[in-house]
Amino acid sequence: MMRMLVVSLLSIGAIVTSVHVSANEPIQPIKAVKPENPKMVELGKMLFFDPRLSKSGFISCNSCHNLSMGGTDNIPSSIGHAWYQGPINAPTVLNANMNLAQFWDGRAKDLKEQAGGPIANPGEMAFTHELAIEVLDSIPQYRAYFKQVFGSEKINIDSVTTAIAAFEETLVTPGSRFDKWLEGDQAALNKIELEGYKLFKSSGCAGCHNGPAVGGTLYQKFGIHTPYKTENKAEGRKAVTGKETDLHVFKVPTLRNIELTYPYFHDGAVATLEEAVSTMGKLQLDRTFNEQEVASIVAFLKTLTGKQPNIRLPILPPSTNKTPRPQPFE
Amino acid sequence: MMRMLVVSLLSIGAIVTSVHVSANEPIQPIKAVKPENPKMVELGKMLFFDPRLSKSGFISCNSCHNLSMGGTDNIPSSIGHAWYQGPINAPTVLNANMNLAQFWDGRAKDLKEQAGGPIANPGEMAFTHELAIEVLDSIPQYRAYFKQVFGSEKINIDSVTTAIAAFEETLVTPGSRFDKWLEGDQAALNKIELEGYKLFKSSGCAGCHNGPAVGGTLYQKFGIHTPYKTENKAEGRKAVTGKETDLHVFKVPTLRNIELTYPYFHDGAVATLEEAVSTMGKLQLDRTFNEQEVASIVAFLKTLTGKQPNIRLPILPPSTNKTPRPQPFE
Ligand code: HEC
Ligand code: HEC
Ligand code: HEC
Ligand code: HEC
Ligand SMILES: [Ca+2]
Ligand SMILES: [Ca+2]
Repeated sequence: MMRMLVVSLLSIGAIVTSVHVSANEPIQPIKAVKPENPKMVELGKMLFFDPRLSKSGFISCNSCHNLSMGGTDNIPSSIGHAWYQGPINAPTVLNANMNLAQFWDGRAKDLKEQAGGPIANPGEMAFTHELAIEVLDSIPQYRAYFKQVFGSEKINIDSVTTAIAAFEETLVTPGSRFDKWLEGDQAALNKIELEGYKLFKSSGCAGCHNGPAVGGTLYQKFGIHTPYKTENKAEGRKAVTGKETDLHVFKVPTLRNIELTYPYFHDGAVATLEEAVSTMGKLQLDRTFNEQEVASIVAFLKTLTGKQPNIRLPILPPSTNKTPRPQPFE
Repeated sequence: MMRMLVVSLLSIGAIVTSVHVSANEPIQPIKAVKPENPKMVELGKMLFFDPRLSKSGFISCNSCHNLSMGGTDNIPSSIGHAWYQGPINAPTVLNANMNLAQFWDGRAKDLKEQAGGPIANPGEMAFTHELAIEVLDSIPQYRAYFKQVFGSEKINIDSVTTAIAAFEETLVTPGSRFDKWLEGDQAALNKIELEGYKLFKSSGCAGCHNGPAVGGTLYQKFGIHTPYKTENKAEGRKAVTGKETDLHVFKVPTLRNIELTYPYFHDGAVATLEEAVSTMGKLQLDRTFNEQEVASIVAFLKTLTGKQPNIRLPILPPSTNKTPRPQPFE
């Protein structure tokens, strides 16, 4: 009886601490998502995995945003149609719905707007929206799914990107050790991880990397104190706004699942989290961390790896005699 | 009471018919597989999906044997490292364990022997076994899984291919409508499908395509009555045996899930099942089927699509600072 009382008091304590901790922290826990429209999500998943949305019939969204690998391809810059070397590192699709906008330079306002891009990008899927629709339209099961979800058999790029975005919205990663700590489980982080988090806040990282996604909430110049040395041509926001002051201003990326989304930075030039952290210290904060400080921040960052989405591989409906054939080698 | 009795008698009837039907048919139902060693299967699945077994870090077994698409890539010949155009159509991995040997020419005796091939094939994954092992060895979670499954942290190509083969052995597709019919459910096939099956037997197809996989039981010349016109250089069994009489002798492929594994033949030159069937009739049996006959055989072949393996996408353990980096553009 006595013990039960203690436990109860402890639980109440935990709840109180939980509320307390979260409220004062720059980072909020990620909430699980319960899809409003599971059928639309399922359709979006099929499209996300369907390489027939590419000219070659070989490349799907999942090729570059591999959900087995943190929603990325883990190479410096992506491989696109005909082995085209992409210009920039592929960001994760995990928690991407929390971004203020999509792409490194924020040129797409949301996931739906973004999703139309890669299909028609010659260096990615190299297809056309018209042909992608023609492919889907030639497959009776797809027509039936679209009918079920959108009330019409008529497939268009709007319904395609709506469904893909609905699927992507489910790609959140709650349940990280850091979130458990935020929610009051003091034992969820060890001493070094906690020190890393304190340093992350006190040194100024959290000024840019904050919110539930630990990033994605604002644009910032990369290379505030010292320019970043890269051969990468990306101009950042300047490409969107045309303003010279926006040169090398990028969306601050999410640090959720950062352990999984190597290599780092928009050029993917940095292979280790240690180097990324120490570069951030120098370039963004004019601060040189010693080895131990770097190690503690890295230890903290690794606690941001959440529960990865539980994906049942979709079974794609077969092409028919009317389906336009892929053109892998043309 | 009366009704229950009738039902019981019917069920007994069904069972008897079932046994009877199967016993006299050239095709046997596919049995579900209960893996002996689920942990090994799970490890094999990770390896099957892990593109880090390729030089680029981009190509996994699942790239060419996509389990969303009947275990194939659905293109005439595969895309390999650096967009290399493969020499031959990728056969399905579904039910591949039932084949008398692996590859179109049967040059690998089983799945384990086969699995070592693509990793080191310059036109496929373009890696070396040594580097693949080095990659796996640098990842503590992989070491722990291998330890759990093989009793040793020491990873080698033998344990890698054993695990992949164990996973592939689970990739069977029971439950097709045809198997239901074989098992006594008379309503599982309609009239046309049944006619197709009868024609498949009476015209001689089942002489080559038989057994539970409806193929995979023997080698036969492609082009018995008329040579097959193709620019494809594959010699078939001749490449293995050196015998001139084995020129263009191939393993008779499985027709299970044939609706999903287009395009057809070793050169992947034939897009539709109708054309494949009528070509088979002419070249192998010297018989010209009329349109209706072709349609009925195609209708029968489509009843061979079974329940596709239910795959939960594996979450791959991240690379570490010691992991050799992929070289996509070298
Ligand atoms: C060939 C590789 C490739 C393919 C295929 C591809 N992507 Fe991307 N994706 C990228 C790259 C590279 C970027 C970053 C581009 C940039 O910021 O300029 C990106 C950016 C994104 C973003 C923005 C994330 C963020 O944080 O800004 C989302 C969302 C996304 N892709 C989803 C998709 C979807 C959905 C598909 C399929 C319809 C797809 N991608 C296909 C490589 C690819
Ligand atoms: C003034 C804003 C700002 C500050 C302060 C800041 N960052 Fe960043 N961070 C960014 C931007 C912008 C990028 C994207 C850089 C690029 O273009 O690749 C980034 C990228 C990163 C990346 C790589 C993410 C990826 O997916 O490639 C890591 C890791 C990171 N920051 C950690 C930190 C740490 C740790 C600190 C504190 C030491 C910190 N950041 C401080 C703005 C900031
Ligand atoms: C780049 C494409 C590609 C990749 C990657 C690839 N395969 Fe294959 N696979 C093929 C092709 C093409 C063939 C047929 C080769 C032949 O018969 O000469 C084949 C044949 C096979 C076969 C024989 C099936 C049969 O019926 O004869 C199996 C089993 C198989 N692959 C499994 C795998 C496994 C396991 C991996 C990964 C370790 C893998 N493949 C990687 C393209 C690929
Ligand atoms: C004498 C042996 C033989 C007979 C009889 C035969 N086949 Fe085949 N079949 C083969 C061989 C060998 C291949 C592989 C040809 C190649 O190299 O692509 C094949 C391939 C096929 C394919 C393509 C499989 C794939 O995955 O690409 C289909 C479909 C097929 N046969 C159906 C039939 C039908 C229907 C009949 C009867 C009209 C028939 N076959 C009669 C030996 C035979
Ligand atoms: Ca990255
Ligand atoms: Ca095929």
